Amino acid sequence: MPDDMSASSAWEEELLSSFLAMVKAKDGDFQVLTKLDHATRDQESFVLMHRKLLAEPGVEEAFQKKALLGRTDFAELHKLPTNTLGYLYADHMIRNQLNQLKPLNDKTAADTTDDYRFMALHLGETHDIWHVISNSDTTILGEIKVAAFSAAQIHTSRFWFALLSKNILKATLYDIESATIYLDIATTGWVMGRRAKSIFGVDWREWWTTPIDEVRQAFGVVEFEI
Amino acid sequence: MPDDMSASSAWEEELLSSFLAMVKAKDGDFQVLTKLDHATRDQESFVLMHRKLLAEPGVEEAFQKKALLGRTDFAELHKLPTNTLGYLYADHMIRNQLNQLKPLNDKTAADTTDDYRFMALHLGETHDIWHVISNSDTTILGEIKVAAFSAAQIHTSRFWFALLSKNILKATLYDIESATIYLDIATTGWVMGRRAKSIFGVDWREWWTTPIDEVRQAFGVVEFEI
Repeated sequence: MPDDMSASSAWEEELLSSFLAMVKAKDGDFQVLTKLDHATRDQESFVLMHRKLLAEPGVEEAFQKKALLGRTDFAELHKLPTNTLGYLYADHMIRNQLNQLKPLNDKTAADTTDDYRFMALHLGETHDIWHVISNSDTTILGEIKVAAFSAAQIHTSRFWFALLSKNILKATLYDIESATIYLDIATTGWVMGRRAKSIFGVDWREWWTTPIDEVRQAFGVVEFEI
Repeated sequence: MPDDMSASSAWEEELLSSFLAMVKAKDGDFQVLTKLDHATRDQESFVLMHRKLLAEPGVEEAFQKKALLGRTDFAELHKLPTNTLGYLYADHMIRNQLNQLKPLNDKTAADTTDDYRFMALHLGETHDIWHVISNSDTTILGEIKVAAFSAAQIHTSRFWFALLSKNILKATLYDIESATIYLDIATTGWVMGRRAKSIFGVDWREWWTTPIDEVRQAFGVVEFEI
């Protein structure tokens, strides 16, 4: 299990307090997001996530390989044709001035011996690829869409479900006129994530040169219109 | 405006505290639900609801008529053919031992002179008909479905959006394995409510003898499968 995984039950109050902090924080406050991320690394949901993911086609093999992206050369990927996954991922990262989440040096990578640690690292470092695959930008609407898509794909992720709940409550309290469009985009992301094949465990380095349309088709990721 | 409508801003803390009370309460705790209902009767969302509903076909006429159900004779409705709205509504009420929400005596009915009061009374007294129309039972799944359907239909209802958020957070905290089925049923109710015509303001007494399939067809209420 990841080092920072909390002991059972302690995380409940931590989750509630970080949830409330996020409701009152500005969208995109990374400090409170990190607090929520920590609070949701409880053992129970990780065990369930692992079990549910293993039941998906291809995921058992992914857990055996434990292939991590590692550091990615975005300048290089950005030279690929503009319709490829590699270009679009690099463009997303460069345009939004994003860093890879938890980029790994060799020492850390060597520690990824157990499934739980791989799961946490893989989900972290591929999150921005999930943005591209699910056609979710970095506006609040894109973040809600990728949250719903991720919750649908990862099944028992307390992190993504808490974020969905937070965004609905935040709109309810402070921006009720946006609640309908928030629920619309959450619905879109949810249906897309539920209908698609599992994209957990995919070694995306093998897909950099593939046109995004073909990537989406391969995993059954289809935009949903209400 | 309803007598118990809180002054702007005071309701925010009340909504948050009743939200948290509901997260920690058992499903179906009516006392905390009443508290949330009170907290969400703020002026801003009622003005917005009124404006958005008026833009729906047929709703302006409904506000002019201000037809209320009033007391309903369930034993009598229960004699209708079993496929009619009237029978199914009566059966829903009898089987679940439900009382009409806020049944009106003549004096109260005479007070329904303004649109806001009519809106609150009409939504309250027709809620269980919305259960039947949207094919939502009184289990937690049915309650989530009708909540999503209602939020989609009423546009800016802080009450229904808060309930949706609450149910997602509650599953996140205490029953993460149910989160997927909760989101599935919320999605179903949301898509149904968004795709259907507005059922706000309908005088259901004119529809008691109509088969439920025809009622649903008339309003475009179609079950959605993920």
